[in-house]
Amino acid sequence: MNAAKLAQKQLKALRTPTIQQVRARSTSTRSASTCPLPTPSQPSFPCVDAHAARESRILASSSKASSSQSASSRSNEGPEPPYARPSPSSYKTYHHAEPLPLVYAPPLPQFDIAYETWGTLSPAKDNVILLHTGLSASSHAASTELNPAEGWWERFIGPGRALDTNQFFIICTNVLGGCYGTTGPSSIDPSIGQPYATRFPVISIFDMVRAQFCLLDHLGIDKLYASVGSSMGAMQSLAAGWLHPERVGKVVSISGTARSSPSAIAMRFAQRSVLMADPNWKKGFYYHGLPPHTGMKLARQIATITYRSGPEWDQRFGRKFRPDPQAVEKEDSDSTRIPALCPDFLIETYLDYQGEQFCLKYDANSLIYISKAMDLFDMTASSLESLKLTPPSPRKSPPPLPPSLAAHLPSPHHEHYHSQLSHSKSHPPPVNPPAHLPDLAEGFKPLANTPTLVLGVQSDILFPVEQQREVADALRMAGNQMVSYYELGGVWGHDTFLLDVQNVGGAIRGFLS
Amino acid sequence: MNAAKLAQKQLKALRTPTIQQVRARSTSTRSASTCPLPTPSQPSFPCVDAHAARESRILASSSKASSSQSASSRSNEGPEPPYARPSPSSYKTYHHAEPLPLVYAPPLPQFDIAYETWGTLSPAKDNVILLHTGLSASSHAASTELNPAEGWWERFIGPGRALDTNQFFIICTNVLGGCYGTTGPSSIDPSIGQPYATRFPVISIFDMVRAQFCLLDHLGIDKLYASVGSSMGAMQSLAAGWLHPERVGKVVSISGTARSSPSAIAMRFAQRSVLMADPNWKKGFYYHGLPPHTGMKLARQIATITYRSGPEWDQRFGRKFRPDPQAVEKEDSDSTRIPALCPDFLIETYLDYQGEQFCLKYDANSLIYISKAMDLFDMTASSLESLKLTPPSPRKSPPPLPPSLAAHLPSPHHEHYHSQLSHSKSHPPPVNPPAHLPDLAEGFKPLANTPTLVLGVQSDILFPVEQQREVADALRMAGNQMVSYYELGGVWGHDTFLLDVQNVGGAIRGFLS
Repeated sequence: MNAAKLAQKQLKALRTPTIQQVRARSTSTRSASTCPLPTPSQPSFPCVDAHAARESRILASSSKASSSQSASSRSNEGPEPPYARPSPSSYKTYHHAEPLPLVYAPPLPQFDIAYETWGTLSPAKDNVILLHTGLSASSHAASTELNPAEGWWERFIGPGRALDTNQFFIICTNVLGGCYGTTGPSSIDPSIGQPYATRFPVISIFDMVRAQFCLLDHLGIDKLYASVGSSMGAMQSLAAGWLHPERVGKVVSISGTARSSPSAIAMRFAQRSVLMADPNWKKGFYYHGLPPHTGMKLARQIATITYRSGPEWDQRFGRKFRPDPQAVEKEDSDSTRIPALCPDFLIETYLDYQGEQFCLKYDANSLIYISKAMDLFDMTASSLESLKLTPPSPRKSPPPLPPSLAAHLPSPHHEHYHSQLSHSKSHPPPVNPPAHLPDLAEGFKPLANTPTLVLGVQSDILFPVEQQREVADALRMAGNQMVSYYELGGVWGHDTFLLDVQNVGGAIRGFLS
Repeated sequence: MNAAKLAQKQLKALRTPTIQQVRARSTSTRSASTCPLPTPSQPSFPCVDAHAARESRILASSSKASSSQSASSRSNEGPEPPYARPSPSSYKTYHHAEPLPLVYAPPLPQFDIAYETWGTLSPAKDNVILLHTGLSASSHAASTELNPAEGWWERFIGPGRALDTNQFFIICTNVLGGCYGTTGPSSIDPSIGQPYATRFPVISIFDMVRAQFCLLDHLGIDKLYASVGSSMGAMQSLAAGWLHPERVGKVVSISGTARSSPSAIAMRFAQRSVLMADPNWKKGFYYHGLPPHTGMKLARQIATITYRSGPEWDQRFGRKFRPDPQAVEKEDSDSTRIPALCPDFLIETYLDYQGEQFCLKYDANSLIYISKAMDLFDMTASSLESLKLTPPSPRKSPPPLPPSLAAHLPSPHHEHYHSQLSHSKSHPPPVNPPAHLPDLAEGFKPLANTPTLVLGVQSDILFPVEQQREVADALRMAGNQMVSYYELGGVWGHDTFLLDVQNVGGAIRGFLS
């Protein structure tokens, strides 16, 4: 049998009956109504069966993996999800052997931090950009010699790109709490020789940044040319500028926030809830068994809804159904399609696919801890004070010049450029400022002299544009004369920062140069 | 021990340690580092334990219920959720013994429909308002003599209210597919003596309306003064006017849509997915065991996010935490609160509570079938044609007069009033109409002569205001000269139709009078 015929046969086996066929069957059943009651056919749920099949596959691959290794060394371990598999040689790791202070818990005695770099560190070490990641990204922002696979910001990093490797030395780390080489809940707690699991302390965005600065210290980098981040990366970027005003030259905050809103918390809470309700989650102690892959898939489906926008889906999926296996049979072309309770609309199959792709790629506990850190992020003065985070003084040094221009441009001209930007008519003071704006402005005081780019997207439902305006307004109220503020249109929602190389990349390039 | 002391003691037992306490413990542990590795304390998850406790309670109440009944009659049955418990005597039921044609399946051989009424049917039977419900509501829209409990639209129904019982006879039914007395997946399929479960056919909004008209026929009501509905009820309201132009005098559509968008489908898909992933769901065959209460709780949490708006939550919850049990102890007043991974922010406890309240009140399969019916709803001509729904001609009769005015006002004046409304400057033609608008206008042709009120809410994220404009614009494009259109502001989002008696109720009163 050739491939085309086989495919047609498989489609035939898969196809759901048309209404006409069901009606015909139903009629024939009813005409035999004097016989005993017929056994009704059991409905089929391919999506539920597929889930069970995935579970079997994970279990099978786990037993294969453990049988191919010495029983003694791995007898206690369960299936190893793919996120643990990338070779540690595909990124660099720094082991910090000293305690790391944490905002909500006693110091973490020691930790590893995974990182990758692009470009060349200048002899003066003054061309460093620290790039912060979103929730689930690894340090692999772009391809490297160690790992030629495409990175999550591939088109933004390289010669002549937004983060120009001809000028800058870019460092990206896996965040504290993550599962791609940096210490997190899936890491072994050296004090007990077992994964931390949910014994891992609740962490904050500030803890993540402090861990990154331990790496910078180790690399001998005293000062960053810029701190750059999108989404949760924008929170880290602002936090870096706040913690170390003298060490961070410029701050870039794209589609982020300085104070997580109840709506965003609600969306992330829903994700954590479906995860923690998965029987395989086991209060976080699943590392010796099946991971909560179902909960992860469901959590990712919810997350995906918040990453894009309705208008994009209108254009992309509309109300189209997935391709209909029935369409192969010409005699059925006139029949009405019977809808399925499993994914049927294209938008449903898209969400299902996104969840499916993600569910074994990321550690469930990392998702819980890091999304909680996002919820807890709040740079209002009252919140910072309650956490005993003492605000440093704003820096006194002038904004840095781009390495390529440092020798050519007089410094006063540069400062003049920035102070003009902030006072432009395109960014007037807010008419109806939120009640917490003065509190946030007070919290932002340490950032008063740091040139900052704030960029938001009008179709973002997770970090709505109001929060972008709030960041820019609070920085200005804090006395910052060097705020650049842009809003983008378009239909990509929160994911714009991953997709819009021209506008997001262009704004970054302009701000950094 | 008095109550106050007992409460304080319970709070003390519940309290989480402060950071200072944890740090102190941690230090004392570390000072004993020459001893064997300490056994780390297991983290506690009250939310997970509470869920397990609920499951035990459901099982216990089930075994109690079955032991108090004859073993023979109920040996095959599991726990009976509360939604099945309201006495059938608290509403009326009509049994329709003839087959009901369905859009996507062979006819349903017979069905029950539960309904309640308010006001008095006029001798001419010309003062009837058919009120349609949202997804999970019962026929109990307002208190009755049979059931004095408050209904879901209590403040909108009564003498002098939006639906004025001095003038109108109001009928509200439980929808087909529901679980409050009307035939749905939890009903016994008489042909096999077992619940339909997921053998129940996929239903459409049009099927629900056809079932309602069987009831109207039974009651001898030939013509409705108006068809009124919000949310899914608005879909039914439009569908009623479409199916029976001559039998529906006026249509009210509040926060509804004529064509479910991919965003709304995505939100409902996420809810169905968490439900169908609950191991207790069992492909819908859970009626003899534990219901999928966890999946229902999670689904309701997601739904709740779509029912309200971010701005409301900003005002109501902000970033406040649930009351801190630690606060009882004065010596801890200076300490930092340790965040919990279980619900901790007020917004989290709110969502948790909403889910908890709902999870046993409604049938999971009803949620799946009815939410799917909403997804499938599409009144574009091309969609209606694909379902072989033949459009009836628009009606020729003039719009009805309110019973109280029928004797006093000349008909031409009334028509003039409506045609002016539709052409007012406050509702100009759309500048950037969606591509499917002409298709929707074509589908709306049967509604061309039916006075219609369309009302939307600007903060609604589930049925966004663009969809309200779309309904009104398509009706006008279809030639309808009697479209009244309002947009409401405010922060209540989709739930506005349940809360804003003054504005929603006022618009309805104005339109019906």
